[in-house]
Amino acid sequence: MLTDQQILRIPGPSPIPPSVSRAMTQPMIGHRGQSTSEMLADIRPKLKRVFGTAQEVLILTASGTAGLEAAVVNAVAPDDEVLVIVSGAFGERFADICRTYNIQTHIIETEWGKAATVSGITGALEAHPNIKAVFMTYCETSTGVLNPVEKLAAEIRGKSEAMIIVDGVSCVGGVETKMDEWGLDIVVSGSQKAFMLPAGLAFIGVSERAWNKIEANLQPRFYLDLKKHRDNLIKDTTPFTPALSLLFGLQKTLELMEEEGLGTVYARHELLMKMTRAAFKALGVPLLTVDEDASPTVTAVKPADFEAEVLRNVLKEEFAMEVAGGQKVLANKIFRIGHMGYCSPADLLQAIAAIEIAIVKAGREIELGSGVRAAQQEYLKGANR
Amino acid sequence: MLTDQQILRIPGPSPIPPSVSRAMTQPMIGHRGQSTSEMLADIRPKLKRVFGTAQEVLILTASGTAGLEAAVVNAVAPDDEVLVIVSGAFGERFADICRTYNIQTHIIETEWGKAATVSGITGALEAHPNIKAVFMTYCETSTGVLNPVEKLAAEIRGKSEAMIIVDGVSCVGGVETKMDEWGLDIVVSGSQKAFMLPAGLAFIGVSERAWNKIEANLQPRFYLDLKKHRDNLIKDTTPFTPALSLLFGLQKTLELMEEEGLGTVYARHELLMKMTRAAFKALGVPLLTVDEDASPTVTAVKPADFEAEVLRNVLKEEFAMEVAGGQKVLANKIFRIGHMGYCSPADLLQAIAAIEIAIVKAGREIELGSGVRAAQQEYLKGANR
Repeated sequence: MLTDQQILRIPGPSPIPPSVSRAMTQPMIGHRGQSTSEMLADIRPKLKRVFGTAQEVLILTASGTAGLEAAVVNAVAPDDEVLVIVSGAFGERFADICRTYNIQTHIIETEWGKAATVSGITGALEAHPNIKAVFMTYCETSTGVLNPVEKLAAEIRGKSEAMIIVDGVSCVGGVETKMDEWGLDIVVSGSQKAFMLPAGLAFIGVSERAWNKIEANLQPRFYLDLKKHRDNLIKDTTPFTPALSLLFGLQKTLELMEEEGLGTVYARHELLMKMTRAAFKALGVPLLTVDEDASPTVTAVKPADFEAEVLRNVLKEEFAMEVAGGQKVLANKIFRIGHMGYCSPADLLQAIAAIEIAIVKAGREIELGSGVRAAQQEYLKGANR
Repeated sequence: MLTDQQILRIPGPSPIPPSVSRAMTQPMIGHRGQSTSEMLADIRPKLKRVFGTAQEVLILTASGTAGLEAAVVNAVAPDDEVLVIVSGAFGERFADICRTYNIQTHIIETEWGKAATVSGITGALEAHPNIKAVFMTYCETSTGVLNPVEKLAAEIRGKSEAMIIVDGVSCVGGVETKMDEWGLDIVVSGSQKAFMLPAGLAFIGVSERAWNKIEANLQPRFYLDLKKHRDNLIKDTTPFTPALSLLFGLQKTLELMEEEGLGTVYARHELLMKMTRAAFKALGVPLLTVDEDASPTVTAVKPADFEAEVLRNVLKEEFAMEVAGGQKVLANKIFRIGHMGYCSPADLLQAIAAIEIAIVKAGREIELGSGVRAAQQEYLKGANR
């Protein structure tokens, strides 16, 4: 096998564009100096556009989970009652964090692979009228479900005063996010998914309504104190030492995203999703989710008549291509293809072509090339739109 | 379109493995110091194995053409009579260099797209019994032909004392080369093809017989004087300032080639050729060369019913994928796919899938996916061998 090739098609970390890798190798500069301030001044408005907000989007040197924890410790008071919509592993993580802080936590659990429904929310809000915050996952990375955040938020806003707190780690930047328009209070994302960077930065958008709550909240927090981050960021600086090379990279990826155009970026992700789904339908290999629930950033496939792990091994051994397996209840049952961030239609066609070979090697008969053909047809449709 | 992606499928320069790019960014060191000597000592035996020779393979800081010129000015005396086998643009270049030095130059011309034949050589050697050197191109990059160097050399050795001088720029490192066993006197290659580096280094293998000729040759030459290069290289140094970053890269690519195994490298190139050819046969799009003449490093396609240039533009505009066009008499008539060096079966499948879309956009009806399927089948055959 060709040495030194890595074809990364997992749902994060995602591949890094060469110009971003180069940007990250810039020599270190003082993080209290003018150059860092200028860089943050350049980053701030671009990050706001990605989140669809006029508010500051805070930048923490931390992984996505710290962003989720920051949402909890800043926006939830110790005696608050909260609701967590769980539709997979990352919904569970939100619940785990809430329970760690002894917050009274209600759960609505959706079957893994299905999206949360508005009616489920309605019932829970009626059953627990004192709920102060609702947590949800925009893209559930573990299942490839995109929850209908806009609709869920509209229902919550109509029925209660609860904060709406969204884990957008695996889709913000690849899927349109209109934080202000949809009435979201906190949206968390991370650098290693659609933002095309290594892990190490968490991004947190905070609504005006959430700031009121945060200012009054007595829950102790230091590094994760969002007020400190906001008060510094509006002066183009950071409260603590930032991961400078990741900021160099962030400046570059945001530039690339604006160069492509955010609308085009989102349309590309939508196209990649459609190409992927068309391929597996043509191959007769079942998808975990229905079309309506599918995320443009990651697709989960649930083979009925071959082992997902055998396929993953063939891809790794013969093509140096990594796709992800299933987590928890879906372990060994699914494989997941990341198509977020630095991923083109050509990359997707490559993944499908290699996966077809791996399906054959996993013992399932298919018409070779038929998945690629369906993806190509989807591409041609998209390109002619 | 996804920004900052470049999919390079031209027959050189070829893509560079990430570990090689990283190696080339090492800080500069003194080229007369111990570290450079140690690097050259590591490089020398590995380069010899690639050329299939026990002799030194010289390393010039220059592009491939300088290597061809070095062959001429070192191994041909001003009053020598030579024969050049021309089967494309790079055969012509050898002839141009010879004529520049007023060397009496005979030509055997083969139709572009066909390989040179043994019978052609036999006739030329009989017609010109004083020929002192025969020049030939191993892989003719402009047509994707691999000339039968072993057979041609055997014929020449049997019939004359002429030096056998081979341009191996676009295949040595990707195709087996047994310089000593086949009786080749000079073999030239360059860094930017199967060696997976940027252009800037020329490699020149020289036989013992050639050294006798070179020592006695009065043709003036300074930078290209191979004696200077040999006398320094055997002491692990260079006569003139070397392109140090390319040497860092060369050390790494040779390491990668040995790690994969030279036999495996050659088998991979063979497989890539077979996959490419199977794809176009299945698509009903004509190949320029017959199977027996085809090079494992580059494939030329000669579409009968669509414009090669339209296809190239679609690939560039929509997939950031570059394939080469035709040169000279083949301009606008063919397109050429490079599959040498850092190219895997997955990369090839990607190229075919994108090319199928471009064929459709160029106005030719095809069964989408059928080229990919044929390439996949070829892969499965190869993998099961």
